[in-house]
Amino acid sequence: MKLGFIGLGHMGAGMAANLVRDGHDLSVFNRSPGRSGSLTALGAHEARTIAEACRGAAVITMLADDDAAGAIAFADEGLIATLPKGAIHISMSSISVAFSKRLAQAHTEAGQRYIAAPVFGRPDMAASGKLFIIAAGDAATIDQCRPLFDALGQKTSVIGEEPWAANLVKLSGNFLQAATIESLGEAIALIGKAGIDRRAYVEILTSTVFNSPAYKIFGQLIAEGKFEPAAFAAPLGYKDIRLALAAAETLRVPMPMGSLLHDRFLRLLAQGGSHLDWAAVGGLAAQDAGDGP
Amino acid sequence: MKLGFIGLGHMGAGMAANLVRDGHDLSVFNRSPGRSGSLTALGAHEARTIAEACRGAAVITMLADDDAAGAIAFADEGLIATLPKGAIHISMSSISVAFSKRLAQAHTEAGQRYIAAPVFGRPDMAASGKLFIIAAGDAATIDQCRPLFDALGQKTSVIGEEPWAANLVKLSGNFLQAATIESLGEAIALIGKAGIDRRAYVEILTSTVFNSPAYKIFGQLIAEGKFEPAAFAAPLGYKDIRLALAAAETLRVPMPMGSLLHDRFLRLLAQGGSHLDWAAVGGLAAQDAGDGP
Amino acid sequence: MKLGFIGLGHMGAGMAANLVRDGHDLSVFNRSPGRSGSLTALGAHEARTIAEACRGAAVITMLADDDAAGAIAFADEGLIATLPKGAIHISMSSISVAFSKRLAQAHTEAGQRYIAAPVFGRPDMAASGKLFIIAAGDAATIDQCRPLFDALGQKTSVIGEEPWAANLVKLSGNFLQAATIESLGEAIALIGKAGIDRRAYVEILTSTVFNSPAYKIFGQLIAEGKFEPAAFAAPLGYKDIRLALAAAETLRVPMPMGSLLHDRFLRLLAQGGSHLDWAAVGGLAAQDAGDGP
Amino acid sequence: MKLGFIGLGHMGAGMAANLVRDGHDLSVFNRSPGRSGSLTALGAHEARTIAEACRGAAVITMLADDDAAGAIAFADEGLIATLPKGAIHISMSSISVAFSKRLAQAHTEAGQRYIAAPVFGRPDMAASGKLFIIAAGDAATIDQCRPLFDALGQKTSVIGEEPWAANLVKLSGNFLQAATIESLGEAIALIGKAGIDRRAYVEILTSTVFNSPAYKIFGQLIAEGKFEPAAFAAPLGYKDIRLALAAAETLRVPMPMGSLLHDRFLRLLAQGGSHLDWAAVGGLAAQDAGDGP
Repeated sequence: MKLGFIGLGHMGAGMAANLVRDGHDLSVFNRSPGRSGSLTALGAHEARTIAEACRGAAVITMLADDDAAGAIAFADEGLIATLPKGAIHISMSSISVAFSKRLAQAHTEAGQRYIAAPVFGRPDMAASGKLFIIAAGDAATIDQCRPLFDALGQKTSVIGEEPWAANLVKLSGNFLQAATIESLGEAIALIGKAGIDRRAYVEILTSTVFNSPAYKIFGQLIAEGKFEPAAFAAPLGYKDIRLALAAAETLRVPMPMGSLLHDRFLRLLAQGGSHLDWAAVGGLAAQDAGDGP
Repeated sequence: MKLGFIGLGHMGAGMAANLVRDGHDLSVFNRSPGRSGSLTALGAHEARTIAEACRGAAVITMLADDDAAGAIAFADEGLIATLPKGAIHISMSSISVAFSKRLAQAHTEAGQRYIAAPVFGRPDMAASGKLFIIAAGDAATIDQCRPLFDALGQKTSVIGEEPWAANLVKLSGNFLQAATIESLGEAIALIGKAGIDRRAYVEILTSTVFNSPAYKIFGQLIAEGKFEPAAFAAPLGYKDIRLALAAAETLRVPMPMGSLLHDRFLRLLAQGGSHLDWAAVGGLAAQDAGDGP
Repeated sequence: MKLGFIGLGHMGAGMAANLVRDGHDLSVFNRSPGRSGSLTALGAHEARTIAEACRGAAVITMLADDDAAGAIAFADEGLIATLPKGAIHISMSSISVAFSKRLAQAHTEAGQRYIAAPVFGRPDMAASGKLFIIAAGDAATIDQCRPLFDALGQKTSVIGEEPWAANLVKLSGNFLQAATIESLGEAIALIGKAGIDRRAYVEILTSTVFNSPAYKIFGQLIAEGKFEPAAFAAPLGYKDIRLALAAAETLRVPMPMGSLLHDRFLRLLAQGGSHLDWAAVGGLAAQDAGDGP
Repeated sequence: MKLGFIGLGHMGAGMAANLVRDGHDLSVFNRSPGRSGSLTALGAHEARTIAEACRGAAVITMLADDDAAGAIAFADEGLIATLPKGAIHISMSSISVAFSKRLAQAHTEAGQRYIAAPVFGRPDMAASGKLFIIAAGDAATIDQCRPLFDALGQKTSVIGEEPWAANLVKLSGNFLQAATIESLGEAIALIGKAGIDRRAYVEILTSTVFNSPAYKIFGQLIAEGKFEPAAFAAPLGYKDIRLALAAAETLRVPMPMGSLLHDRFLRLLAQGGSHLDWAAVGGLAAQDAGDGP
């Protein structure tokens, strides 16, 4: 398929490479230049403008947040202005519910198609085509995109015809992961201050009743106090908690654990942790206890 | 091995059965009578007193809480008074760190051996011999008990030579599970009030990035609002959160998520939920939102 | 002084009356009509448009929130478009820090003067001229407005030259009052469920160590469970907590008690309490306890 | 009146002095010696044993906590063993509800009378006879003690015939004060990081809508970050929050603000703040914000 790919960050670069390897005719664009070298070596075209990335049957966006996605979508010569009628915008970024609704309306008005397909997975899963994709939007359009999703992920789940629903599922999932980080942080602070070996504890937990990747990855990072380099940076985690809480406010759903996580992330950033992995939230409990790995 | 088994509740009955089936010579005791019928049918002996269950090389206790365990251990003709010197008390109950230390000292003074081996798993896992066992205590004694553990569980993990360490690991694990319940409760409240199908949401989550038994079991119960019958009753969950927080107080480790869970459980009980599964804590977020499954 | 007054709600109506009684030549305006009858009877002029209220040396606004204030300030024939150069906008509404900054900039660009002067006090204090006024802005301009403030309040405090500072002080004050409501709610829930008479308790507290109007007013309302009619409605309290937290987010200041209050208000509104006094947040603790007055 | 006074700490020393000055025949006792010099200079007798302080019509105890009160009451030659039948024990310490009930029962069994009369006020108020006294117990007994209370405090309030009720009121009052500390801490952290002068802010708040001693005292300490010397030490504040929460647990009353305060105090102690005034809890918000006075 001839398509564009916009956003070549930690996640997007690996995803785009998988699409090229799968035989797609890809035009890649990134706002800050110099990110497409390895992709053009694989056979991708470098688009010098957003418009150049919008000449195919579909364009995928993988951007940091609402602001970045808005700068691509609503620029003068941007995605909505230049994407052909009937072409598909596949938004894979973690954006807000409100912004996803705004995109949906703008595409409808412009005669274009829009689906949301945010992903779960860290950069290594993006690079190896092992993402989990949560898709929502018109069913026929999603079906048309399945070959792309198959190249990017290990599984695609569809959560209905309203694109924003996929964004809400994604945000709720990051809330659940952040809750795992904080709960592990408190458990490890407790165990560690009791004098039990933190790594042995995590090894036991995650080889038995908490035998899942999230507990393993976060448990190990927290037990070692190793929060650099960031696979998913704290400001991004904070953003997703804020967006989940913004949706919860609109729907009038109090989320006390969400509020706790919000305050933990805000503290981490206030204390200079913007460069750390979001797992660093799991180190605050030990700090409160006057202890740590 | 000739051994005793005290405590034939939801968990203990299945565990004792597995030991009998594995060929052990088991004397079983329960404080309230009438619980041993199916076990004697399998070949177990019914002990009419604690002392009768304490005549072998080891005795296993599987009791509800510190009070129940204390009533067995420190009764006039109780476990500590009657267990032979050198025999082993394998305490598999979820008891407090402080009470485990007290047991350790009492057994040492009485010339007996004591290991703690609390378990993770719901009654169905107890019945099928699939528990996860966390053991701590003298290494040689634990080795001697391995055949018993192999009959009871799918894996035994050793966390050191201090028995209380196993109890703390167990309590921390139940804290982590309770955190999963609450976080799922908030996420499902959010998703549900947005109009997304709760079961489809849980199905998607738990077939992708949260593909673990805890998320599946609790997610389904919360999505359906189905909290009866209780596999693990709310008062037991509350007890374990309290014991985790009691250990945290002693060690001076603030656990804000633990405090949140404490208040959730206390509310559930105050509002009449003592008969419900502890997953019912996950229904409070929807109640706060004026919504629910 | 010839001046305008915009916003004749529970607070504004009483304030405007005091200015008329003090001899000022007042043109009053309210977006929804029919609120100026008693004021014109006192001698005020009814302005039929915003512009008509903006023909004097100053105009006071007393509006519900940022949206209402924005609709007055930034309308086509609105306050900023029609206020004469050099005239003063005295914004007494509880608005956000961000919106206050936006107003300041717009007035500067239009050659007008702007001070913020939000107030503490319930409608009865507005009617009796007993408000506490927190002012910020150019010192000479504030001095010029002092006769107005003297007619409206019992005391005016100046917190610097940046108008937004007064808004932040006001928001922080409402946060402190909301914290008083919640803490009283928890204390009264505890005392009441213990069987102690709630009113006697509040009477003792507030005649001794908590001898201040806030504890008396809120304590009595909570002890009696009497939250109607609303002197200050729950949605307004919620708005102010949100604005305080929005400022705290921008400044990166985690406020866990603020987050708790946020979730309490959100729950009150989600459960149908929009018509209640904000003191109704103080009734939630008893509800959690399965009890109440 | 001939009476004993046990417990000559920061509070008790000043209280005992007022009783001597009021003409009472006082035998004073303190477990650690060397505290009675100034009192004997005023005319008090030094009791060398608890029993010597228990020879009058009444004995007042003013001790740090349940443990200290228990060591006096239940010692072999202690208060309950030696107080004459019909004599009155006036317990003015901040003790737990459970321990107050235990004392009541022990005194009844010993044929003695017991009332609880805990106080609000810092050491300077104790020294100047300006305490607020909350009394509960048999009405006639309380009447008999009124001359003593008049010498000690500015007002005595009676909250019923069950002594423990006075203890619960006292604990709830300290919870309310701790909530004031934390809320002021968050407000001052917000204001301070915004660049507004902290002392000017507190001055404005407490000369207007928060014109009460608690806001003045705590606001000033927090604005200045001045937490030494301690007028009321953090471990005592922590103790009272724990006792309030213990009563709340027994009564099944969730207190989320209480839990937040509990975790704040635990953190303060874990981080080495045991020597600080309890107002130091109000400094944690600024620490979280990476800022401070």
